[in-house]
Amino acid sequence: MSEARHAFAVPEHQRRCAALQTSMQSAGMDALLLTSPADIFYVTGFLTRFWESPARPWFVLVPASGAPVAVIPSIGEKLMGTTWISDIRTWDAPDPRDDGISLLADTLCAMVPQKGRLGIPMGPETHLRMPLADFLHLSDLLAPRDISDATRVIQQVREIKSEVEVDRIRASCRIAGTAFERVPDIAGYGIPLDHVFRDFQVALLAAGADWVSYLAGGAGPGGYDDVISPAGADPLRAGDLLMLDTGAVRQGYFCDFDRNFAVRHADDGTRRTYDALWAATQTVLSDLRPGMRASDVHSMLTGSLRASGVTPGGGRLGHGLGITLTEWPSFTPLDHSELRAGMVLTIEPGALTSGGRMMVHEENIVLRDTGPELLTARAPATLPVLD
Amino acid sequence: MSEARHAFAVPEHQRRCAALQTSMQSAGMDALLLTSPADIFYVTGFLTRFWESPARPWFVLVPASGAPVAVIPSIGEKLMGTTWISDIRTWDAPDPRDDGISLLADTLCAMVPQKGRLGIPMGPETHLRMPLADFLHLSDLLAPRDISDATRVIQQVREIKSEVEVDRIRASCRIAGTAFERVPDIAGYGIPLDHVFRDFQVALLAAGADWVSYLAGGAGPGGYDDVISPAGADPLRAGDLLMLDTGAVRQGYFCDFDRNFAVRHADDGTRRTYDALWAATQTVLSDLRPGMRASDVHSMLTGSLRASGVTPGGGRLGHGLGITLTEWPSFTPLDHSELRAGMVLTIEPGALTSGGRMMVHEENIVLRDTGPELLTARAPATLPVLD
Repeated sequence: MSEARHAFAVPEHQRRCAALQTSMQSAGMDALLLTSPADIFYVTGFLTRFWESPARPWFVLVPASGAPVAVIPSIGEKLMGTTWISDIRTWDAPDPRDDGISLLADTLCAMVPQKGRLGIPMGPETHLRMPLADFLHLSDLLAPRDISDATRVIQQVREIKSEVEVDRIRASCRIAGTAFERVPDIAGYGIPLDHVFRDFQVALLAAGADWVSYLAGGAGPGGYDDVISPAGADPLRAGDLLMLDTGAVRQGYFCDFDRNFAVRHADDGTRRTYDALWAATQTVLSDLRPGMRASDVHSMLTGSLRASGVTPGGGRLGHGLGITLTEWPSFTPLDHSELRAGMVLTIEPGALTSGGRMMVHEENIVLRDTGPELLTARAPATLPVLD
Repeated sequence: MSEARHAFAVPEHQRRCAALQTSMQSAGMDALLLTSPADIFYVTGFLTRFWESPARPWFVLVPASGAPVAVIPSIGEKLMGTTWISDIRTWDAPDPRDDGISLLADTLCAMVPQKGRLGIPMGPETHLRMPLADFLHLSDLLAPRDISDATRVIQQVREIKSEVEVDRIRASCRIAGTAFERVPDIAGYGIPLDHVFRDFQVALLAAGADWVSYLAGGAGPGGYDDVISPAGADPLRAGDLLMLDTGAVRQGYFCDFDRNFAVRHADDGTRRTYDALWAATQTVLSDLRPGMRASDVHSMLTGSLRASGVTPGGGRLGHGLGITLTEWPSFTPLDHSELRAGMVLTIEPGALTSGGRMMVHEENIVLRDTGPELLTARAPATLPVLD
């Protein structure tokens, strides 16, 4: 079993639950219905890779007061029983006649008064992880109860990390940092990109990752075509810029950062772009303070890049980080979320290079009252070159 | 880029699209709206680990005739452009004002007549991977068009695998088989379970996995507590039964099978249970034929186990397999889906052991007209013992 490695102490979960309940009170919600791996792990500590199977829905309810209730497939009863949750109601899933919906509706109807309100995350960056037809049926069963969007209720709690959460993200960042130090042994002229991806994942595991949920990257002359592709089999060429971007997971928490490497050599333009991205990041590391807006970070980054004579690329230039690879807020011109102390964030400027290619740069921080504290070992100030 | 390794030839995708369109015609659907990684990969060949970020929705539309249309965040335009899809419409996501919904609605309104019908997967084992509030808004924008459940429309196409799909699943099975052969080097008395998990993932990558999306397992005296837990740090003890269950991915296709190992020694009861699970699987490998029902497989397995004097455990005793770790149908008493040639399936009997623990056994097959063809190297007929 996994108690020793993955669970937080009960008070951490009680604190989270109380914070959600305070947030629910402001929104007039009598219960929250959570269905996503991240929300359920956040509240309960229930951590499993079994989410990879789409076959079964899982439900956790947070009442206005008191402890959460799990309504889950019986296959998860033992693992949920290792968490702080004691009220665990199960059914044998998958059941094509009724896949937990009547059990869930009964539980919710007892928790939410007829004139009450149920909150469900249904806004940006959320998904309802249950069949839509079952949700529509559930809505009928819950009538006349109000069903409202609980995205903000959860977001404003989850986006402020406790110190034990920061410690876990820092540990994931350290693991990826150790793996990035191994890149000169893994990658270089003539080595196929898919071999680099494979060996980098091995390096992440060797450095202590529980699993590697995300690895993307690219390679091309002075820049890469995009930043979300899996690896192809082409060997690295002299003059290629190689980028690896990883979300390694340790004890349920992600890092999310990348590193760039030139293969054999880099031209002056490539070096200047790298320097500009590094400097733009440095500006944010120096000047970011709580009370600024997400859109301010976008302005700081693009302003610095333009001052360096570089064209900003990419839409979002950073985001929240924690239980998922990306969390709210987003560093775009459109997101005016206030940045608060305790947020863990990625700073991720991007630049256009020649031929429609790009270069990106990324660090992870926790925002303190005094400014950013780096969770990643800062990228080298000059572009490293591989043999 | 990834064309060389991940994409199928265009005719394979054209065949899939045509099969969906035939299926849509029977259901009177003018378009399908797909939002999940699996459905989108199936139709387009678009493969990325970027799905790990929940920030952005992605949409692919299959019209009643003609080629699919992608309505996607601009960050995915280059990668989607490497697939056979040529009509790619993008917006800069995330956009809190309108995250692709008006672009999607415009595209759908031109594709589906006012009195027409849009199909969306909303049944068992499906999720709508977009914010629920955006879906409710989209429904308003599409009125008075009918929105119906397209689960069966897609299921009946996706669950029959082409030979190139079978080849990919076979390749994933072979990779995991190679890794399982390495378990005696990785696991044994005194080795912590989390080290075993780490080294087994490394072995999967070394054997050719692109990534390891699923690894679970357990260890305990003569059986394990559950089959979905991540690893703890406890060292393996003499008499433990160790089980590893993996979904390794190669070119977008999963395997899903497990193997059991005794540590140092196993008692007679444990050996008898292993033999009974092996024999139950053998019965299905011998007798399964197209035209039988999913529930028949459940009966065959539980009947064989009971005849061996073993109590069946677990709810679902196998399922479909392919682009996701688990697919329809389910081998339960309640699923009466007809099994057809071309289905790739897991056969996964489970048994209760002492102290509330269990033992499971799993193989992967493709169902042929003549019966099952194994995709996994058959588990050893007697329980292997580790030092």
